[in-house]
Amino acid sequence: MAKLTSRKEDYSKWYNELVIQAGLAENSSVRGCMVIKPYGYAIWERMQQRMDGMFKETGHENAYFPLFVPKSLFEAEEKNAEGFAKECAVVTHYRLKNDPDKPGKLMVDPEAKLEEELVVRPTSEAIIWNTYKNWIQSFRDLPILLNQWANVVRWEMRTRLFLRTAEFLWQEGHTAHATRTEAIEETEKMLDVYAEFTEGFMKIPVIKGLKTPTERFAGADETYCIEALMQDGKALQAGTSHFLGQNFAKAFDVKFTNSEGQQEYVWATSWGTSTRLIGALIMSHSDDKGLVLPPELAPIQIVIVPIYFKDEQLAAIDEKVQQLLADFKKIGVRVKYDNSDKQKPGWKFNEYELKGVPLRIGIGPRDLENNQAEIARRDTGEKQSVGFDNIVEFCENLLNEIGDNIYKKALDFRNEHITSVDNWDEFVDVIENKGGFVSAHWDGTDETEEKIKELTKATIRCIPLDNPLEEGKCVLSGMPSKQRVLFAKAY
Amino acid sequence: MAKLTSRKEDYSKWYNELVIQAGLAENSSVRGCMVIKPYGYAIWERMQQRMDGMFKETGHENAYFPLFVPKSLFEAEEKNAEGFAKECAVVTHYRLKNDPDKPGKLMVDPEAKLEEELVVRPTSEAIIWNTYKNWIQSFRDLPILLNQWANVVRWEMRTRLFLRTAEFLWQEGHTAHATRTEAIEETEKMLDVYAEFTEGFMKIPVIKGLKTPTERFAGADETYCIEALMQDGKALQAGTSHFLGQNFAKAFDVKFTNSEGQQEYVWATSWGTSTRLIGALIMSHSDDKGLVLPPELAPIQIVIVPIYFKDEQLAAIDEKVQQLLADFKKIGVRVKYDNSDKQKPGWKFNEYELKGVPLRIGIGPRDLENNQAEIARRDTGEKQSVGFDNIVEFCENLLNEIGDNIYKKALDFRNEHITSVDNWDEFVDVIENKGGFVSAHWDGTDETEEKIKELTKATIRCIPLDNPLEEGKCVLSGMPSKQRVLFAKAY
Repeated sequence: MAKLTSRKEDYSKWYNELVIQAGLAENSSVRGCMVIKPYGYAIWERMQQRMDGMFKETGHENAYFPLFVPKSLFEAEEKNAEGFAKECAVVTHYRLKNDPDKPGKLMVDPEAKLEEELVVRPTSEAIIWNTYKNWIQSFRDLPILLNQWANVVRWEMRTRLFLRTAEFLWQEGHTAHATRTEAIEETEKMLDVYAEFTEGFMKIPVIKGLKTPTERFAGADETYCIEALMQDGKALQAGTSHFLGQNFAKAFDVKFTNSEGQQEYVWATSWGTSTRLIGALIMSHSDDKGLVLPPELAPIQIVIVPIYFKDEQLAAIDEKVQQLLADFKKIGVRVKYDNSDKQKPGWKFNEYELKGVPLRIGIGPRDLENNQAEIARRDTGEKQSVGFDNIVEFCENLLNEIGDNIYKKALDFRNEHITSVDNWDEFVDVIENKGGFVSAHWDGTDETEEKIKELTKATIRCIPLDNPLEEGKCVLSGMPSKQRVLFAKAY
Repeated sequence: MAKLTSRKEDYSKWYNELVIQAGLAENSSVRGCMVIKPYGYAIWERMQQRMDGMFKETGHENAYFPLFVPKSLFEAEEKNAEGFAKECAVVTHYRLKNDPDKPGKLMVDPEAKLEEELVVRPTSEAIIWNTYKNWIQSFRDLPILLNQWANVVRWEMRTRLFLRTAEFLWQEGHTAHATRTEAIEETEKMLDVYAEFTEGFMKIPVIKGLKTPTERFAGADETYCIEALMQDGKALQAGTSHFLGQNFAKAFDVKFTNSEGQQEYVWATSWGTSTRLIGALIMSHSDDKGLVLPPELAPIQIVIVPIYFKDEQLAAIDEKVQQLLADFKKIGVRVKYDNSDKQKPGWKFNEYELKGVPLRIGIGPRDLENNQAEIARRDTGEKQSVGFDNIVEFCENLLNEIGDNIYKKALDFRNEHITSVDNWDEFVDVIENKGGFVSAHWDGTDETEEKIKELTKATIRCIPLDNPLEEGKCVLSGMPSKQRVLFAKAY
């Protein structure tokens, strides 16, 4: 297998090669759409399982709404429609027929034109709020706390595996509430769930914040986000939670009778994370040898590789490993024994490093004699010999330690890359050279935000939730400002 | 809530009302597409989880392929294309724009027409085999054993919730093999997995068989199926497993180098089950009071309902129930305690019967005095009082018994509705009046099959796998026949 380009040499190339070589995903013959390969999908499955559990613990249920949104529903909430109109795949016909001019070929049947075009959902607020309308009469019908796991399509012009694809997999929560306060609480609660998931399970530190008005979700009154930092110093939005106010309730006329018998519009939230998180995972932890996966998330946590010259040596190792496999499985560790004779140990070592398996156990004839094995950590590359008597407990502890270490490493990197700046030259210098988040004063206007983006490609990633108020002057305009916000170039 | 129409009065109406009233699904504003509501989706999730485990145990992994199939790929395997062309939703444009004639409205942007139309997948053989082409060079790359959980779209003109919808959720397995024998073994293995799942988990007895050539999947050399019988005497195809021969390998030029160094086309299978199975579940077991769910599949296995007049009675029941809930949860029973004061016990009893909860435990003040509770079975309606000391074990056993009983009931009904007939009058009489499967001789021609369908609406559901050979004469044509096949009207 070809050696990976190093991150230093070409970060973007490194990423693309890694996704392909580790067998995570590949481009398909459909423009901008990817094939998620089994190893990549196994990671997504583990993420889904954990997140789904967290949604259920916080009182949500799953449901499923149609893939298609009739154009008249799609356009009902105008801001939302305007925000997504330019990237909508549209179904206009419902039948193909034989092409009379080309034997064996098909053509769209012009007689099977839909009366009303169907938009392939770029997000589901419209179809869902049109449904909620029929479910909600009284305050007793509220709240509605639903989530759906689905595919969505946004016709992006420039795509990259996992990070930006025309079709992607995601979850979208859509909730309905009787009061503004309750809806805001829900929005914030789900942001916390996302942060806990991303930091605790994926080991990616995030900053919780609010988007500026120009960066808000189309149709939202407020967009909360979690922002992560990649190793190349670019930020990545890892999840968003939107307070939708009464915008969709008004667009779809969804009212309820409150406990005083009065009619009110319903309050809404929506929140989503997607396969994009796999891109964040790769770019947060991996190195020039390949993926580095947090143990809890890794499809294979430990790989055992036998090192031998003769068949009887392998037989002896095989026997020893059987007990080990049983012991690991008993405590729920996902372990793989690769005793295939198609590849040499050195090849296997590289392969499992590329795939990010957190621990590798190598066992040779000499190890057997000494009643021990060699354990190699993927994150630090450290190796040590450990006796078979306490190897299971040792590995279990080490897996936890690796998770902690990966998180700490990413957190240290992130913290070293939040730079406070107070003048424009410094701002440009940090954005251009050091990268990462720049904490700077901003005058609060769309114009300045836009101007900074034009000049530096940096956008306001968020206004951190725990932001201290502080008098200052906008880094570009010099106008007064009450707090710093975080700028960065972003994926 | 409105009383259900009885099955006897109008089976079809009963089904539609039950799906709505039990909160399983409803029609959406998109023609032929349904909304799967939380209770229906919870059933699907449990089915997915169990099936997914069975796929993994038999060596399969999950992956994800694009929703869209470019027309040129779609038409490559001609029979497959021909079979699905008439029901394809087609994406022709990738952008909407403001309608200059209608402020606030959108229109399809004529300048954003795709060079090549995209078919929304009705099934994924084409897109997957076009991908496998790049994955397969040598016999060492085989077999490929993948499954995908996805949504598909088939533009059906007459739709019914779960049974036939324009969009539905399903799993589709797609495997690639070096030999014909291995591919056939896979096809048969997955049919067995489906039968085991349907009978063991859903408690629906099925007949395994082969489809006739006219009923085969478009592009298959052989279609295996499992056929179930609904309470109205109509059959329902509950899953199919296709031996695709080398048809897709030839269409997409997928060859491998065998161990002798020669190039060969790859052998293929595909197999699928869908949310249609939920329709089968409903129609197999449910009664005029509502759903009857097999305990293993039921989202709620036991509901506990307090019966009280005064608050202090409820407090005493609450206290007793806490221990019970903990005990049930400890052994993995899904239990719900409904002590809401919004509804009376009688309403709750009806509601949980409608929802098919297998066991109901009612506890009143008198029960507490006697240290017992009343247990009601959903399947038979039987009630009995059981002491708290052994109530958990009692319920656990009863849940198993209910599963067995539901299966036996459906099996007895099915077996009573396989009628062997030897002449045409009898054939018509049984199809028209008794219903169920008719086991009859058929001359093996498409013409006779078609004629029988025209005359009676009955189709050949399958040629059972364990069919004994037996000389006879075709029930319609009188031509010689070597075996009986199963006819029925079907969903």
